[in-house]
Amino acid sequence: MIPFSVHILGCGSANPLQRHRPSSQVLSTRGKLFMVDCGEGTQVRFSRQGLSLSRLGHIFVTHAHGDHCFGLPGLINTMGLLGRTAQLHVHAPEELRPYVEQAVELFCQHSGYEVIFHSVDTTQYALIHEDRSLEVWSLPLSHSVPCCGYLFREKLGPRHIRREMIDTYDIPVCYINNIKAGASFTLPDGTMLPNSLLTTPPTPTRSWAYVSDTAFRPQLAPLLRGVDLLYHEATFAADDEVRARHTFHSTSSQAATIAKLAGVHRLCIGHFSARLGSERALLGEARSVFPDTILANEGMEITVGEERCSPQRS
Amino acid sequence: MIPFSVHILGCGSANPLQRHRPSSQVLSTRGKLFMVDCGEGTQVRFSRQGLSLSRLGHIFVTHAHGDHCFGLPGLINTMGLLGRTAQLHVHAPEELRPYVEQAVELFCQHSGYEVIFHSVDTTQYALIHEDRSLEVWSLPLSHSVPCCGYLFREKLGPRHIRREMIDTYDIPVCYINNIKAGASFTLPDGTMLPNSLLTTPPTPTRSWAYVSDTAFRPQLAPLLRGVDLLYHEATFAADDEVRARHTFHSTSSQAATIAKLAGVHRLCIGHFSARLGSERALLGEARSVFPDTILANEGMEITVGEERCSPQRS
Repeated sequence: MIPFSVHILGCGSANPLQRHRPSSQVLSTRGKLFMVDCGEGTQVRFSRQGLSLSRLGHIFVTHAHGDHCFGLPGLINTMGLLGRTAQLHVHAPEELRPYVEQAVELFCQHSGYEVIFHSVDTTQYALIHEDRSLEVWSLPLSHSVPCCGYLFREKLGPRHIRREMIDTYDIPVCYINNIKAGASFTLPDGTMLPNSLLTTPPTPTRSWAYVSDTAFRPQLAPLLRGVDLLYHEATFAADDEVRARHTFHSTSSQAATIAKLAGVHRLCIGHFSARLGSERALLGEARSVFPDTILANEGMEITVGEERCSPQRS
Repeated sequence: MIPFSVHILGCGSANPLQRHRPSSQVLSTRGKLFMVDCGEGTQVRFSRQGLSLSRLGHIFVTHAHGDHCFGLPGLINTMGLLGRTAQLHVHAPEELRPYVEQAVELFCQHSGYEVIFHSVDTTQYALIHEDRSLEVWSLPLSHSVPCCGYLFREKLGPRHIRREMIDTYDIPVCYINNIKAGASFTLPDGTMLPNSLLTTPPTPTRSWAYVSDTAFRPQLAPLLRGVDLLYHEATFAADDEVRARHTFHSTSSQAATIAKLAGVHRLCIGHFSARLGSERALLGEARSVFPDTILANEGMEITVGEERCSPQRS
């Protein structure tokens, strides 16, 4: 089975002198890595988690607060030192363009690779990147500065051929691609074999959404419909709702409410405030709204959608 | 005794994905902290070493390479989050001005304190900062970009009054300051009491020099004459002298040669290349030239000049 897993490199909030490290997560799938946010020290935790910089081609940054981007210059610099030649794409709100461009100009002028900045419109739910098997969408959030989350969704692949049926009916190879795409097949005697007899459904797609930092924003729910893994910030406990509103953050219960409204499969909460003694209380609060909730932690790797991915007949 | 100690927060070279962390050291004396260099992640190690950001008023940066300054925006940002109101002074080559100014503008606009950038002329040996008890001098180095080290030297205090002599000769209090400054005293009967009878010498001053990054530069020796603790980069082993020259770095033997030429009291080597398997070989090479050499390591605190500091009669 093709891996689709999320590594938590950092899940603390702005003050980095606490138990947790600043924000960063990495999606690993089909030999590629996609990073979201890059707080200070991310490159060291990335490496400790056994990930390889050469597989990282795209970094998505949510907003221009230091705990989400102060690791970017170091990462870009190190890639140059390691002799990278492949382009690196940084997708971020326009506010971060001078920051990235200055880092490249001041520190990486002699690097043998190019850093390409892509401005993301934080007010739009839009497809901002795709490759053969994956789409990345921006998710407008409500924070004190322009900010967006990101939704990673696998593209639906072709249906799977049932090899034994192909053999039984002696179907020529040249029809296989059409059948994978959904076509039926008619035997020389005129018998029509429906596609559902010849194939099994495509492998279910998997999806991961990263939602941080944001105030409670129920408008997100339709955009997150059926997502496999939702990472949603839960900076504060449920009884700190006033502070959450004032600082444009969410509480544990609000994160869980979004998960419930959207009908996601699993919720992971993070971006914990340095004020918290322990995150256990947050977990309890979230689970009372949305039971399938887990706490983020540095070093964690979450395999997405595993329980739903064995192909089934339609 | 007034403390004068150096904390090693990071002593690796450019690639941060190795055993050592990027450069940063902190001098702690008279309740104040002075930082030299601030590689990525410095603020976390600073905090772990039990140091307090509120005591840090001056940061000195040697040059505009990322492993010496990528921790600066995060540190400045965190000080703002913690409610700092006191000014922070950053002394660095002019090349770093836009970097520091952009970090403040983009991320710390709403901080309640001021960051003041002081441009350091890396070609001059010059007094760049002083307070009542300490001087900081720039040390021109030879690197691939403008770069200077820093020499921290205590100012010589007044001579110490020998209380028993003051009592014996019944010397009036109004003469004490003059005597501390070196004056003799004449008794009513015309007998002259020389200052050496009335005082002991001032507490010996202590000094720490930070020399990184640089190619072998014997012109440094006269500027480092008699320094108590010399931190000198030793990026490479002795047999890697060609690579050291090409990259404007030093070998272990070259660092030790500088220590020997300058007649310093103790040498600490660091800025270890990621290519090294172990630093033990470097230590052996350095000690064969200058025996009182130690290896830098993260978490180390070096008390400077302790063995020489008990006041002695002149």
